Amino acid sequence: FPSRLPNVGTTIFTVMSALAAEHQAVNLGQGFPDFDCDPKLIDGVTTAMRQGHNQYPPMPGVPVLRQAITSKIEALYARQYSADTEITVTAGATQAILTALLCCAGPGDEVIVLEPCYDSYIPNIELTGARVVRVPLAPGTFRPDFDKIGAALSPKTRAIIINSPHNPSGMVWSPEDMRRLDELLAPTNALVISDEVYEHMVYAPLRHESVARYPGLAARSFIVSSFGKTYHVTGWKVGYVAAPAALTAEFRKVHQFNVFTVNTPMQHGLAAYMQDAAPYLELPAFYQAKRDLFREGLAKTKFRLLPCEGTYFQCVAIDQLAVPERDLPEADFCQWLTREIGVAAIPLSAFYGDGFDQRVIRFCFAKKDETLREAVGRLAAL
Amino acid sequence: FPSRLPNVGTTIFTVMSALAAEHQAVNLGQGFPDFDCDPKLIDGVTTAMRQGHNQYPPMPGVPVLRQAITSKIEALYARQYSADTEITVTAGATQAILTALLCCAGPGDEVIVLEPCYDSYIPNIELTGARVVRVPLAPGTFRPDFDKIGAALSPKTRAIIINSPHNPSGMVWSPEDMRRLDELLAPTNALVISDEVYEHMVYAPLRHESVARYPGLAARSFIVSSFGKTYHVTGWKVGYVAAPAALTAEFRKVHQFNVFTVNTPMQHGLAAYMQDAAPYLELPAFYQAKRDLFREGLAKTKFRLLPCEGTYFQCVAIDQLAVPERDLPEADFCQWLTREIGVAAIPLSAFYGDGFDQRVIRFCFAKKDETLREAVGRLAAL
Ligand SMILES: CSCCC(=O)C(=O)O
Ligand SMILES: CSCCC(=O)C(=O)O
Repeated sequence: FPSRLPNVGTTIFTVMSALAAEHQAVNLGQGFPDFDCDPKLIDGVTTAMRQGHNQYPPMPGVPVLRQAITSKIEALYARQYSADTEITVTAGATQAILTALLCCAGPGDEVIVLEPCYDSYIPNIELTGARVVRVPLAPGTFRPDFDKIGAALSPKTRAIIINSPHNPSGMVWSPEDMRRLDELLAPTNALVISDEVYEHMVYAPLRHESVARYPGLAARSFIVSSFGKTYHVTGWKVGYVAAPAALTAEFRKVHQFNVFTVNTPMQHGLAAYMQDAAPYLELPAFYQAKRDLFREGLAKTKFRLLPCEGTYFQCVAIDQLAVPERDLPEADFCQWLTREIGVAAIPLSAFYGDGFDQRVIRFCFAKKDETLREAVGRLAAL
Repeated sequence: FPSRLPNVGTTIFTVMSALAAEHQAVNLGQGFPDFDCDPKLIDGVTTAMRQGHNQYPPMPGVPVLRQAITSKIEALYARQYSADTEITVTAGATQAILTALLCCAGPGDEVIVLEPCYDSYIPNIELTGARVVRVPLAPGTFRPDFDKIGAALSPKTRAIIINSPHNPSGMVWSPEDMRRLDELLAPTNALVISDEVYEHMVYAPLRHESVARYPGLAARSFIVSSFGKTYHVTGWKVGYVAAPAALTAEFRKVHQFNVFTVNTPMQHGLAAYMQDAAPYLELPAFYQAKRDLFREGLAKTKFRLLPCEGTYFQCVAIDQLAVPERDLPEADFCQWLTREIGVAAIPLSAFYGDGFDQRVIRFCFAKKDETLREAVGRLAAL
């Protein structure tokens, strides 16, 4: 039968993690920590299982977790969502984004993405039958270009996917960016899917500009976040969507026929752990220290550092390296780097629908300090 | 924006469970046990979390779990699947079925369902853009009608969804049924999505006729199963798909951009637990005893018992009841039964695209013996 995704291979994160394992490389490719979560979080899940929380939860999620999510959003972004009708717990952020797209977009619709973008967005749009409209972020800075976004809007625009803090660039949208998007969309019916999974990784002096802070945007937005990145449990696959009741109603129609619900004991464990705000309030300082350590190390190599305002990703240009392999396509360079130098990275070309190559690769610094030092030591050889 | 699923409301299972909770009714509606799983299974998950299995697993699932699945399939159905290229762990069976449909069907295609059928199938097909072709099972017996299935096949048929043991009827396909399906599909390119989540609940003297036993069918099939029903952990949301490598490759393209992966510690816990075959080998006897207890009790009421060859569902006709509410539409009758008699059930009309009403409702007997006795006591009042 004809493939529904003829241009899709195995996701780059899987490919690079497998290659890193094969060559015992330091894996700074796929975004996940090499240290463990707080044992308290594990104890919460164990307690939930032992208390018998092992059957189907309510379809939109366990009430205590939805409550904890609304409290957090209100505390941080001063906006009230109804735990009952406006929050849905998802099996991670990727499922949330596909589900949001499936509930609103179809053949004849257009959905805008800002490139570079996370590799699931474009195939997700394709699966709905809608047309993908690719708009580049500003070259070099990765900031939104509102003239280009404005030009891409049409009466067929059903949604735009935004992502700040931005994977892969680490760029963070400013209040001015948010206001300009709000203005641009005000005369339209376009929805916003706001991927905010790195919301707790924005470095001083900036703060996270959640869509939740902007009433005009919030009214048309599915806000997507995830516990995996915040609590160092990327393998637990629990995220959520916050959206006005009318949007949530459509979201849940699809959600209930995709995963139906999300792992019950994990939800209870996360709800208990969220009672304490410290873990996510302390996260920026925790990761800022790792970012600074990693950047200091890289500054002594021939990799050219790009800014990192948020996320746990650091991009570098490879054009100044002293080795001939610097001229390889980014993807080939990353393969070589993994095999020969023993450090895995992700080529930025993997985040473009057309594989655009700008001589930039992405490292993940969600790693033990010793891992970062080991990687920097190996990279200094170039 | 226009709804992508205008005919869909909240799934009947959610509606009836909420109503049961509100009226403190005995909940024999949604299919889940009211007893707990084996504590050993919980310990396995706890161990996995404490050992640090909390980050992304490999995209298709944790290798030890995929191995355990292939060993089980080989032991029970004498067919070898490759753990590497033919097994994918999913976030439950519903996600598996949507993902299978998304990877193979689209606008211009047709997908056949046999009604009554699980309530996610039809909206799932609609989300792909394919046309739903509804074929009735034989009235009263719920057996497949191969003349009708044959007549529904067309050059546009991309797939047929089958389900044995059958929810809601409890009917189990015979070897002859399997051979007839195989013959019918032999000259076509139609794929099979075989929902086998109740594979370990087939009652003597019958056995489960997995598609895996039939080479011609297996070559064109996505076999879907789930651990939730087998191990009494419906809230854990872990299932799997077994399919030939070419089908699995397309399945994984969509899977990786839907949920990407499935909860890591749950996968390790399940893999450890699967080393012992006893829990699933003993399941038929365990549930057969509950079925017999429940049927004996119901036999003394005015509900008319239908056969139950498999699953943990028992269907009954309501046309002989001594109360005027027996003439209500099935859905209204179930609401009344929940509110006034204190027993929740599911109307069979919820399993038909057109709400066909045959005066039959479904009870779930995956309950403690005392729960079943309490329910029967209440039902005897009618
Ligand atoms: C889902 S695997 C990829 C993890 C991630 O978010 C990234 O590395 O960008
Ligand atoms: C996903 S909730 C429904 C559970 C079930 O399989 C059923 O009751 O039929």
